[in-house]
Amino acid sequence: MTNSPTDVHPAWLPPAALRPVGARRVHVAGDGPLVATVRAEVAAATTAHGGALVDDPAAADLVLTVDPALDGADAFVVGRRDGVTTVRAGGDAGLLHALHHVVRQGEAAFGADHEDERHAPVEPVRMLDHWDNMTVHPVMGQVERGYAGGSIFYADGKVRHDLSRVEAYARLLGSVGINAVGLNNVNVHATEARLLTDHLDGVVRLAAAFRPHGVRVYLSVSFAAPMTVGGLPSSDPLDPDVQAWWADAAARVYAAVPDFGGFVVKADSEGQPGPFAYGRDHADGANLLARALAPFGGTVFWRAFVYDHHQDWRDRSTDRARAAYDHFAPLDGRFDDNVVLQVKYGPMDFQTREPVSPVIAAMPRTRLAVELQVTQEYTGQQRHAVWLGPQWSQILRFGLWGDGGRTVADVAAGAGAGTGAEGAGAAGTGAARTGGIVAVSNVGDDPFWTGHPLAQANLYTFARLAWDPSADPVTLLDEWIGLTFPDAAAPVRDTLHGILDDSWRTYEDYTAPLGVGFMVRPGHHYGPDVDGYEYTPWGTYHFADRDGIGVDRTRATGTGYTGQYPAPWREVYEDVATCPDELLLFFHHVPWSHVLHSGVSVAQHVYDTHWAGAERTGSNAAAWTALADEVPDDLHARVTERLAEQVRSAHEWRDQLCTYVFRHSGIPDARGRRIY
Amino acid sequence: MTNSPTDVHPAWLPPAALRPVGARRVHVAGDGPLVATVRAEVAAATTAHGGALVDDPAAADLVLTVDPALDGADAFVVGRRDGVTTVRAGGDAGLLHALHHVVRQGEAAFGADHEDERHAPVEPVRMLDHWDNMTVHPVMGQVERGYAGGSIFYADGKVRHDLSRVEAYARLLGSVGINAVGLNNVNVHATEARLLTDHLDGVVRLAAAFRPHGVRVYLSVSFAAPMTVGGLPSSDPLDPDVQAWWADAAARVYAAVPDFGGFVVKADSEGQPGPFAYGRDHADGANLLARALAPFGGTVFWRAFVYDHHQDWRDRSTDRARAAYDHFAPLDGRFDDNVVLQVKYGPMDFQTREPVSPVIAAMPRTRLAVELQVTQEYTGQQRHAVWLGPQWSQILRFGLWGDGGRTVADVAAGAGAGTGAEGAGAAGTGAARTGGIVAVSNVGDDPFWTGHPLAQANLYTFARLAWDPSADPVTLLDEWIGLTFPDAAAPVRDTLHGILDDSWRTYEDYTAPLGVGFMVRPGHHYGPDVDGYEYTPWGTYHFADRDGIGVDRTRATGTGYTGQYPAPWREVYEDVATCPDELLLFFHHVPWSHVLHSGVSVAQHVYDTHWAGAERTGSNAAAWTALADEVPDDLHARVTERLAEQVRSAHEWRDQLCTYVFRHSGIPDARGRRIY
Repeated sequence: MTNSPTDVHPAWLPPAALRPVGARRVHVAGDGPLVATVRAEVAAATTAHGGALVDDPAAADLVLTVDPALDGADAFVVGRRDGVTTVRAGGDAGLLHALHHVVRQGEAAFGADHEDERHAPVEPVRMLDHWDNMTVHPVMGQVERGYAGGSIFYADGKVRHDLSRVEAYARLLGSVGINAVGLNNVNVHATEARLLTDHLDGVVRLAAAFRPHGVRVYLSVSFAAPMTVGGLPSSDPLDPDVQAWWADAAARVYAAVPDFGGFVVKADSEGQPGPFAYGRDHADGANLLARALAPFGGTVFWRAFVYDHHQDWRDRSTDRARAAYDHFAPLDGRFDDNVVLQVKYGPMDFQTREPVSPVIAAMPRTRLAVELQVTQEYTGQQRHAVWLGPQWSQILRFGLWGDGGRTVADVAAGAGAGTGAEGAGAAGTGAARTGGIVAVSNVGDDPFWTGHPLAQANLYTFARLAWDPSADPVTLLDEWIGLTFPDAAAPVRDTLHGILDDSWRTYEDYTAPLGVGFMVRPGHHYGPDVDGYEYTPWGTYHFADRDGIGVDRTRATGTGYTGQYPAPWREVYEDVATCPDELLLFFHHVPWSHVLHSGVSVAQHVYDTHWAGAERTGSNAAAWTALADEVPDDLHARVTERLAEQVRSAHEWRDQLCTYVFRHSGIPDARGRRIY
Repeated sequence: MTNSPTDVHPAWLPPAALRPVGARRVHVAGDGPLVATVRAEVAAATTAHGGALVDDPAAADLVLTVDPALDGADAFVVGRRDGVTTVRAGGDAGLLHALHHVVRQGEAAFGADHEDERHAPVEPVRMLDHWDNMTVHPVMGQVERGYAGGSIFYADGKVRHDLSRVEAYARLLGSVGINAVGLNNVNVHATEARLLTDHLDGVVRLAAAFRPHGVRVYLSVSFAAPMTVGGLPSSDPLDPDVQAWWADAAARVYAAVPDFGGFVVKADSEGQPGPFAYGRDHADGANLLARALAPFGGTVFWRAFVYDHHQDWRDRSTDRARAAYDHFAPLDGRFDDNVVLQVKYGPMDFQTREPVSPVIAAMPRTRLAVELQVTQEYTGQQRHAVWLGPQWSQILRFGLWGDGGRTVADVAAGAGAGTGAEGAGAAGTGAARTGGIVAVSNVGDDPFWTGHPLAQANLYTFARLAWDPSADPVTLLDEWIGLTFPDAAAPVRDTLHGILDDSWRTYEDYTAPLGVGFMVRPGHHYGPDVDGYEYTPWGTYHFADRDGIGVDRTRATGTGYTGQYPAPWREVYEDVATCPDELLLFFHHVPWSHVLHSGVSVAQHVYDTHWAGAERTGSNAAAWTALADEVPDDLHARVTERLAEQVRSAHEWRDQLCTYVFRHSGIPDARGRRIY
């Protein structure tokens, strides 16, 4: 198939994806800037596909109207009667969501009559954080942990002159319900600290690009900005001059961007400045910024990723996994109403497999957002096809107080607080403490947006799960395939499912086993290095020796981390007999000969999973080859190149892990495969 | 003591070091630019110390004359009769050497009468290669493997405007007999490739700074220069256009710098271009350049550091140690007379302990230079006080065909070739095939020249050993102490000997054991990472597992590397019973429980040496503290800071090595010390 017609791939909104709508007569009614966006979208589609934008609703096949009587500006109902599909939305944002709901349904939206169905997002904030820098770091590149080229926002130390890529990105985000974007890296360097001040005009322009698609912009700020930008002698949150500086900064931002979302803050973390320097705690720090934003309705997203990154590897009593809970749980109830504590899904750092962070269950009087990582820092860096939908679904649906109880998604949505469903942890005030779902974006100025074209599926799936965490991720993947390859034959759909459906577990199979994490090359985090972090200050160890492997985090004999969980998990994880296999080495140090619930030893598990995982990368690459005539040439070539690298890398992981385990354990592979 | 009077430390030529000469009446006779240097040096010293430069030799205490009848421009004789010290030198270079010989002797030069003693350098070329770049690499800095600040030659992409540091450096080098300097990194980047062309005016200025001190300049060149600089379509050594380009380039350089030394070349090595691209071999490549230089008397130093840096760690049959011999030994006799093959002292890469490279014994019909590393890439990076005199002395005095036979220094000097002393390897032509001794410099724009002030001793000792490889290195160290701290009390001398005399072996004690090498952090090579290179393409492995450690390089069961040595070493190294302990793991893979000649197991050896070595760093630091009033404050502070880092690092090495060995071997420390 020939290449995409433009330089930039259309992702899940190629013209053909809008054909079912574009072939109809469509009536759009309502006010507000997003209604104009809906109207323009429909006009373009009908022009392309033979339908029409009609003034008379009675002449329309599809009627889209705003109905303020409907509860929730984001919500909409859709029904079909007498061959007319009718949408009513609670606000103009809901109308945009509804349009894309109809687009996703495609011809099915114009099938049999049916009653009104109501749709509304579960999570109030659905946010993407960009770790983009304005300048290019000689080693890290422009986007920290970015694997898709440079920033679409910035070039040459300034906001880009041409924001057409940003507008296209905003359209993609709006189509899947993302409503917030963090514009810059949480590690805020000198230039970026001045987005608040000298570069505010650029923020105004970025906000203008996102606004028509229902997306508000946020800035990452440096806690030291009163000093580094403002020239004050201190950044002490209790210093009135500091408070005045932030209040003034916020006022200036809101004067320029009235719908500005607020601040994202990484403080006292991995070298970033924070309140500890003044003997203050994180509540003092977060509330300082919150009070500056409050008059304007802004929110602080304060990250809970705080730990000691100068740990001594000799000290087995210190446990990085404990750090976020130890720092933040005691502060529950101390944060202002417009502070959202942004908690990574696991206690470590975006590993392929971690237990859910116990912080999420520990702060009923605090608004919490759960942070996921769409950019594949530890999951193949967009060189490996790893679709993370199943990981995120499993996290969001995890019952924090046991299966069937309130989930991670519930806590983030503020749903069910004060109902007692969380058992002993229940100290909710009864008010809904809504947070949201946040993720680090995987987008850059790459023509395919995400480096690996199939990584677009991660961006899509994240957004759709933020809207509805209970959705079946494979169904969402199927949506993405249908939109992205609207004219593709059935083998494309089958092959993509074959490659992606189990790709997260495949990646887990050939990388760090049984929840132990890391084993990546230090620094860039790509490729295997089993002992790479073992003797470093980073707190990420596996303690392998000739006898066994794993981290004892039990209360009985280990770091006591299991005690941060509510029942039943504190007991489930504590006992090697009940701890799930996939988290065994996260919680326990066991002999290489320890027999898993799966019936094989730890050593044999490593051999089996690594051979199987590496082999699957090969069969995936072969399957993709067959699609050469079914997808655009440039996309096929790019994916082919990436799959080849995945095959190479997976075999390298396999061989290093198997050799490492054999060298340590001396246990031969029961199946006699070659270990180097 | 107060600080040094100038911003730049005077190294081993502080004014007081010249006091014994400066207090005398001195007569200097002779012609040539170096005689002018001698005269100026004496004039400055006598002005400072109350002596005089006198026209009448009969009125002098010290007479320095050039006597062309004496054999060898570098040679001199010195005697004392009737209270007058008289020097006759074969040339003006010899006169400079003689002056500094007298300076080193100090008051002893003016003691009892004695007969003439003759002095002449053993090695004809005594060269320092600078791995300086004109531009600053964002990670590597300006000087590759440099640990003493930026380049003294270049700034802002050009040769420095102010060359006063270069002049001071040239004076230091001339005073110890260095007669050649390579001006730029052997990894030749785009800017530096144009030193030959666009930047030739800068080379002229550098040559002018070195010339008065008897030092000729060389350039590292890129084999691809005919393409990258000259715009030709090829760099094929057999292409007449390529030959013409090099001939023209050489002619232009010599027109500007008539005493230009020649080229240094790293080709087909670690990504540098070379003759392999055209199906040519290294003799073709080296001779191409040699023929361009020959009309002007120039020399090519062609590096033998050629190996596969994309090795597969799974492949135990490939042995990087074999590479230089396999590439170069078959080419013996094929190199033109003005080619010197520059061979690293060991087969790997400047490790703390390696066997001597078998290439040095294998090419009797080739001029060879032996390459040492003064910059402490693998020996503590000038943060650790590691004086390498004993290492170099041991290498240079190593009997290639057995103890008492021709040594490494002999081969480099071209001495004894064709005498049959090398046994079966003797195929010498009878003509002296002189090479020389080369080392990578450790100097930068740091005020102390070398970062660690005590690392100045390495530069000094290297130069003096290149002059006389049979010298006792501790005597040379004593010379350096006396010159550098001329007014210091006896404790300074004792403490410096205490810190430095055994510092190389101390460093070996707390780092990679028993000749196994590496175990450093990949990339920057500082600090421990036992498995850091174990699964990489670099060919530097130790193969540790739960049973044992080491590389089997025997003919019987290993890579066959021992077969590259002449007798008796091929047998000595082959047999674990005769292989010296300090090279055991270089040649053999042995169980952790293997008992060394020293009587302890490999595991226990690691524990014992690492504890002892780390402890010595602590006692050294304590001893240094006591010198606070004996040496300049700035120097004392700098050394104190470095010794503290050495203590920290040595303990980190100790703990990582001991933990690694215990985790693998399960063998407890017989002395019950704490292993983490």
